[in-house]
Amino acid sequence: AEVKKIAVIAGDGIGPEVVAEAEKILKRTEELYGYSFETEHVLFGGIAIDEKGTPLPEDTLKVCKSADAVLLGAVGGPKWDSNPKELRPETGLLGIRKELGLFSNLRPAVIFDCLKDASTLKPEVLEGTDLMVVRELTGGIYFGEKFRREGEGGQEAVDTCVYNVQEVERIVRQAFEIAQKRRKKLASVDKANVLETSRLWREVVNRVAPEYPDVELEHVLVDNCAMQLLRRPSSFDVIVTENMFGDILSDEAAMLTGSIGMLASASLGEGSFGLYEPVHGSAPDIAGQGLANPIATILSVALMFRLTFGYDKAADAIEKAVAEVLDAGHRTADIAVDKSQALSTSEMGDLIAAAM
Amino acid sequence: AEVKKIAVIAGDGIGPEVVAEAEKILKRTEELYGYSFETEHVLFGGIAIDEKGTPLPEDTLKVCKSADAVLLGAVGGPKWDSNPKELRPETGLLGIRKELGLFSNLRPAVIFDCLKDASTLKPEVLEGTDLMVVRELTGGIYFGEKFRREGEGGQEAVDTCVYNVQEVERIVRQAFEIAQKRRKKLASVDKANVLETSRLWREVVNRVAPEYPDVELEHVLVDNCAMQLLRRPSSFDVIVTENMFGDILSDEAAMLTGSIGMLASASLGEGSFGLYEPVHGSAPDIAGQGLANPIATILSVALMFRLTFGYDKAADAIEKAVAEVLDAGHRTADIAVDKSQALSTSEMGDLIAAAM
Ligand SMILES: CC(C)[C@H](C(=O)O)[C@@H](O)C(=O)O
Ligand SMILES: CC(C)[C@H](C(=O)O)[C@@H](O)C(=O)O
Repeated sequence: AEVKKIAVIAGDGIGPEVVAEAEKILKRTEELYGYSFETEHVLFGGIAIDEKGTPLPEDTLKVCKSADAVLLGAVGGPKWDSNPKELRPETGLLGIRKELGLFSNLRPAVIFDCLKDASTLKPEVLEGTDLMVVRELTGGIYFGEKFRREGEGGQEAVDTCVYNVQEVERIVRQAFEIAQKRRKKLASVDKANVLETSRLWREVVNRVAPEYPDVELEHVLVDNCAMQLLRRPSSFDVIVTENMFGDILSDEAAMLTGSIGMLASASLGEGSFGLYEPVHGSAPDIAGQGLANPIATILSVALMFRLTFGYDKAADAIEKAVAEVLDAGHRTADIAVDKSQALSTSEMGDLIAAAM
Repeated sequence: AEVKKIAVIAGDGIGPEVVAEAEKILKRTEELYGYSFETEHVLFGGIAIDEKGTPLPEDTLKVCKSADAVLLGAVGGPKWDSNPKELRPETGLLGIRKELGLFSNLRPAVIFDCLKDASTLKPEVLEGTDLMVVRELTGGIYFGEKFRREGEGGQEAVDTCVYNVQEVERIVRQAFEIAQKRRKKLASVDKANVLETSRLWREVVNRVAPEYPDVELEHVLVDNCAMQLLRRPSSFDVIVTENMFGDILSDEAAMLTGSIGMLASASLGEGSFGLYEPVHGSAPDIAGQGLANPIATILSVALMFRLTFGYDKAADAIEKAVAEVLDAGHRTADIAVDKSQALSTSEMGDLIAAAM
C-alpha cells in the first residue's frame, strides 16, 4: 500500500505521552490492515522555543507541508506564558494554521455513555447530544491587523476583524456538506445585529443555502447560542461560525459533554490534508507521570483515517475498540470513579490497540 | 422628599406589561416610605420605529438625559428584524448606551432557591452560585469603525475593536470596587494570547490591581471562562470583561442559573445615573396575554433603588417581598410546574406589592 506520511508534533506537557499511545494505534493499524505509515517527529511549541528559539521552526513547517497529515499532542504551559509574543506557543499555533492553510476546525462534541455523569448538566438534558462545531480558523479578529497608538484616552489598542466572501463561502459550504452527511441541521452563528462581518457572513449563508435544500438552516446570534447550548444541546447538529465565536462556543460545547478528555478535533485545509489533535490542553501539572488519558489523541487518529486517508474501516475499528475498553470499565485517572483502580496512559493505549 | 425622575421605556412585546407591574412597585414604595417618583413614558425601540420612524427619537433621549434613572421593559421583535440598520431596535439600544454614557453593564446571576430545578445544571453544581458579570458597554468591536470594501477574495467586511487605557481602567476599577463589597474575588476575562486589545486590558488590570489588595484576582481566557462557568459556577464572584465577551458570557451565566425570567440588570455611567432592565427579551410570542413574569423588571427597580437612589431599605423590601411570594408557591406560567395554577402578570405584581 501507499506509504502515508504523518508529521508528529508531540509538543509539551502530556503531549509526548498521549502521542506515544496514538503511535501504537498507527502500528497496530499497519499490522491489521496492511497500511503503511511513515512518521516524522518535529519540534513545535514550548519545546521548540527552548531548543530552537522559535515556536514554529522552518524545518517543522517543511516537514508538515510535505506530510499527508499532522498529528499533534498538546502545546504550551506556564513556563512560556509570560514570554514576548514571538516566543509563545500560541504564536506557533496561529502560524501553523495560517501556513498550512487550515481554514476549518472541526470539533465533534459527543457524549460517551459511560461518562455522561461526568457532565455538570443533567443527564436528561444531555441525552442524545451529538454536535459538531465547524469553526473558521484562519480569518477574523485572530489574523486582522493589530496595533497600538496614542489617543485621547491614553494609549489605544486596536484589533481588526476582517472576512471576505470567499473565506466565508468555503467554510460555510463545508459545514453544509458535513450537515448533509449527519442529521441535516445547520446553525449558523453570528452577531449580525451588531457586526458588519456577521452581516456579510449571513448574506453568504443565505446565498448558498438554496444549494443545500435538504439541510435545515437556522441563524442564531452568538449570545443566544451560548444560552441554547446549555438549554437544548441535543437539538444542535452542525454549528458553523467565525474564528473568535468558534473558539468560545466549541469550548463551551466540549465542556458540557463532560467528556473533554475524550474529544478529538481536526483542522482541515483545501484537499485532504489535515492536522489532528485532542481538544484538551497540555496539562503540565500531570505531565510525565503516566496519568494522562490518551483516548482523545487516539480518537484524533480515527478522525485522520476518516477525513484525510479515507480509511473508514480502520477508523471504525479504533472507535469501536475505545468504546469496548470503556464499556469493560477500564479508566484512566481523569475519568475513574475509583482512582486507585485507574490505568496508566500506556496501559490504556495497550488495551485499545489489543481491542482493535 | 426630593422627587426622583424616572424615564420609563415600556418598549415592545411583553415590555409594557412587565413595566406596568414595576410601576406598581414604585407607587407602593411611595406609600410605604414617603419617597416621590415622577415617571415619564417615552417611545423607544420597535414602537418608536413604527410611530416616529426611528428607534431612538430625539425626545426620548432628552427625557432620559434629564431623568435620574431609566427603567426599560424590553425592545425588539421579529417585526423589525429585517429592517435596514437605522430602523432596527438594536441600533436604538446601542445608541442610547453611547448617548447616555452607560459604559458598564452589571448582570447579577443568582439562583432562586425555588427555581434551582429549572436549571439544566445539576443542583449540586449550581449550589451557592452568586456571580456578577461586569461588562464594558460602550467600547470594543460594538462601536469601532465598520465598513465594506472590495478585496482579492471578493467583497470584504471589516469591524474594528478598539480600547483605550481610560476606558479599560474605569470599568476595571468599578469591578474591583464591586468585588470589594462582595466576596472579594475578581476574574478578568480576555483573550490576551491573541488580541492586542486584550493585552492592553490585562496590562491595565495588573497595574491597578495592587490598589485593591483585598481582592483576589485571576486572569481567565475567554474560551476557558466559557468552560469554567459550566464546571464551577459557584467559584466565581465578579467577572469583568470587554463588550463582546461580556455579551456572550453574561448570557451563558444567566442561562445556567435557570432563572432567566428573574434576572435584573443595570447599565451605569459616571455618577449615579443608570438604566435598569430585565435580562430577558421582549418575548413577542406571549405578548399582550398577561402571561409574562414581571419579577425581573421588579427586581430591576430594586437595583435602581440601591445603585442610583441609595434607597437600600426599599430595595431590601422589594427583594424580600419577591422571595416571600415565591416561597409561598406563587408562580407565573414560565416558572410554574402546574401551568393551570399560574398567576397572571398583574396578579404577580399585586402580590409582590402587597408583600412589601
Ligand atoms: C491557544 C489559542 C491561541 C487557541 C485559539 O484561540 O485558537 C486555542 O484556544 C484553541 O482553541 O485552539
Ligand atoms: C440586542 C443586542 C445589540 C444586545 C447586545 O449585544 O448588547 C443584547 O444582546 C444585549 O446583551 O443587551
